[in-house]
Amino acid sequence: MDSLNRMAVELVDEALDFADELNLAAYELDSGATVLDFGVEADGGLEAGLLLAEIQTAGLATVQARMDRVAGAPIPHVELTTDHPGIALLCSQKAGWELDMEGFDGLGSGPARALVGEESEFEAVGYYDEFDLTVLAVESVELPGDAVAEHVAERTNVNESAVFLPTCAVGSTVGSVTTAARAAELAVFRLFELGYDPMNVLSVAGTAPVAPVSYDETEAMGRTNDALAYGGEVHLTVAEDFDRFDELPSVAADEYGTPFADIFADAGYDFYEVDESVFAPASTTVDVVDGPTYALGETREDLLAESFGLE
Amino acid sequence: MDSLNRMAVELVDEALDFADELNLAAYELDSGATVLDFGVEADGGLEAGLLLAEIQTAGLATVQARMDRVAGAPIPHVELTTDHPGIALLCSQKAGWELDMEGFDGLGSGPARALVGEESEFEAVGYYDEFDLTVLAVESVELPGDAVAEHVAERTNVNESAVFLPTCAVGSTVGSVTTAARAAELAVFRLFELGYDPMNVLSVAGTAPVAPVSYDETEAMGRTNDALAYGGEVHLTVAEDFDRFDELPSVAADEYGTPFADIFADAGYDFYEVDESVFAPASTTVDVVDGPTYALGETREDLLAESFGLE
Amino acid sequence: MDSLNRMAVELVDEALDFADELNLAAYELDSGATVLDFGVEADGGLEAGLLLAEIQTAGLATVQARMDRVAGAPIPHVELTTDHPGIALLCSQKAGWELDMEGFDGLGSGPARALVGEESEFEAVGYYDEFDLTVLAVESVELPGDAVAEHVAERTNVNESAVFLPTCAVGSTVGSVTTAARAAELAVFRLFELGYDPMNVLSVAGTAPVAPVSYDETEAMGRTNDALAYGGEVHLTVAEDFDRFDELPSVAADEYGTPFADIFADAGYDFYEVDESVFAPASTTVDVVDGPTYALGETREDLLAESFGLE
Repeated sequence: MDSLNRMAVELVDEALDFADELNLAAYELDSGATVLDFGVEADGGLEAGLLLAEIQTAGLATVQARMDRVAGAPIPHVELTTDHPGIALLCSQKAGWELDMEGFDGLGSGPARALVGEESEFEAVGYYDEFDLTVLAVESVELPGDAVAEHVAERTNVNESAVFLPTCAVGSTVGSVTTAARAAELAVFRLFELGYDPMNVLSVAGTAPVAPVSYDETEAMGRTNDALAYGGEVHLTVAEDFDRFDELPSVAADEYGTPFADIFADAGYDFYEVDESVFAPASTTVDVVDGPTYALGETREDLLAESFGLE
Repeated sequence: MDSLNRMAVELVDEALDFADELNLAAYELDSGATVLDFGVEADGGLEAGLLLAEIQTAGLATVQARMDRVAGAPIPHVELTTDHPGIALLCSQKAGWELDMEGFDGLGSGPARALVGEESEFEAVGYYDEFDLTVLAVESVELPGDAVAEHVAERTNVNESAVFLPTCAVGSTVGSVTTAARAAELAVFRLFELGYDPMNVLSVAGTAPVAPVSYDETEAMGRTNDALAYGGEVHLTVAEDFDRFDELPSVAADEYGTPFADIFADAGYDFYEVDESVFAPASTTVDVVDGPTYALGETREDLLAESFGLE
Repeated sequence: MDSLNRMAVELVDEALDFADELNLAAYELDSGATVLDFGVEADGGLEAGLLLAEIQTAGLATVQARMDRVAGAPIPHVELTTDHPGIALLCSQKAGWELDMEGFDGLGSGPARALVGEESEFEAVGYYDEFDLTVLAVESVELPGDAVAEHVAERTNVNESAVFLPTCAVGSTVGSVTTAARAAELAVFRLFELGYDPMNVLSVAGTAPVAPVSYDETEAMGRTNDALAYGGEVHLTVAEDFDRFDELPSVAADEYGTPFADIFADAGYDFYEVDESVFAPASTTVDVVDGPTYALGETREDLLAESFGLE
């Protein structure tokens, strides 16, 4: 297969070519690294969000929007399907790169992670990328500068001028869209945490509602996580049965039913203090090839309507 | 951003290239203007309808079909999303150009309007196009001739040979599809009429069922308008709150619940005599960025089933 | 219109170019014919299934996946729409070529059939293809060899090296996806069997759930047929009314309600002994242009859940 970073850079080029249509702003830093503002100062939009989700999965997933309802109200939903769950979701889309630097706080996802390859997912999947350009998608309320570009360049071993940093706040349209695109990733990562070999996940399709946009990052984080935990639906085709599939959906978490905003407050607003079982989709179907098919969990429109503040 | 007319002409070229596959007929008038028959004598189809909706929005919207149900019966629905609601919907898609000429009666939409720019929407949006080719989509039971081409050329200030006129009757498959694609436009225009600045609508996604096809234009008009008023669902992301959002959905109209065919008869079959509040989607969600999210109106499958004559 | 086989070969080229991404294996036989393994030994996937459905309809249909639910469980559904039902579905997609040879048992579909043109559909539609390359999609638990390639080459009158044989088992992800893509075809063929002129079907849109994958071909056949008979939904736009439309949906079959696995066992596992009325979609809307619109049949989630073995 082609390099993840090569495929992502091609999609970034598309974003640069259609920056006006996508309501993006793009510029070079002094180092030559390129920042693409998908939703910090720029408006972005639904299309920009879908494209960023494609970039985060390095072109190995199909991402689309479709209208559905939450508690009767029309709300766009994002659908993401991939036949390479391990590589596309764990080795690329997962937001596993903490950017905790002097003067900058953010979370990185995308194929740059596959040039570093230090997280345990990479060993499980057996994928490591090599390429001389790289893309790290950044979730932050501020746009990254040269310190971030330098950090990324060093860890991925590429020139600073070859670093592309598409960036959005969680509290933006693109933030709501790209988080809704994580339902499938959450399911696959949750299985990995439970001890399931991610290479046994053959295909996955996920969907979740696009949460209403808030500029308050804590509220935005609350809504987007609730969109997944109470509105995320995932179908997995897997090669092997497993005795812990019932722990996959969000209903298995002790905190089930509590809005994420409250869980987050209880954890002192520290992501890493939140129990990992919280990051799970609401409703899942697990089709074991040549074996049983499990329907687990359920969506909760009442909790979604409350979290989204539908009036 | 690129010229609306340039983008629409590229889509018209695609229609010409795939005329057979799309069941279209295309020919040149004496003046050199090009007529594309999407659904007067030609059959057209679902794909032709989706492409014409793209042409009408000058490539600035994503248009797709998806199967859903009306009163349990499978019916294709059209979805349209755009992150440029003002330009794509008000300055292009809106059917705002009355073609009331000797021997020809029709309604024009599409980017040719943005070369004229006389309607009040253009001032509100601040968009005016300049280009030497132009596209006016015509809704009419007859195909336009040189008199129409000449009229369009004069008002848009292009050569007659540079005028493209994709045409369909409301009572055709393409007519049903392109009207179903207007749910989002109706919402944005209704807000504009209510005094809301259309530039504060950041993104919009709309959907509506494709009405059964009738060759009786009055019946066709009745069904396609009911498809929007009782089946249209729209989600809007907007920058500012407003005290008249509750007037947006069709339920706010005095005539709510009356089939459009009856309303139209009462108005003496004169579009301009119908109260503007009738042209509104059934169910809307308004997500005020960093503010409240309103769920307004509702779909009415009973009224749709009656209007569509489902047996 | 372009040759069906030309359009299908272009899609096969796409499959060859993206074989890694699609989880396909491809190789040449001694004769120079090309076999593409979409789901015999290869995993394939959702994307591979959608592409094979496009190949089977020779690029004249739009095929997409979308998430929906069966008895509350998230299950991907396939949608297929075409404005050329006669040519795309009857003259290409229909699995009308029995491959019952020494040492090989399979079923062929796709545009190669239109180079032979012996089945009665071809006369009804009036379409016969001519081209020097050909594609026959093969449904079989084993990969075809040179005997199959030779047989196809002889009947289609092309060189063996110009034969392309994309192949999958019914019991594979691609098998489940491509069967789900047959809802529209079933409806059009059923109408043809009932005596309706297929050229009067102007446009059709169909959808059905993707059945859970079983390597037991009998179980796989049971589930995929039930997916259509109890989960298939089809909308048809037709030119003429007909007094037998009520016989179109699966509910009209005597065997209605019986799982296909049981019907198949009763027929001695011989496809040709199963009553043809069984191969029909669950729920259909027939929109007679300028006439009545019929809603016929209904989906049965209880029977689907039982057939799919949802736990």
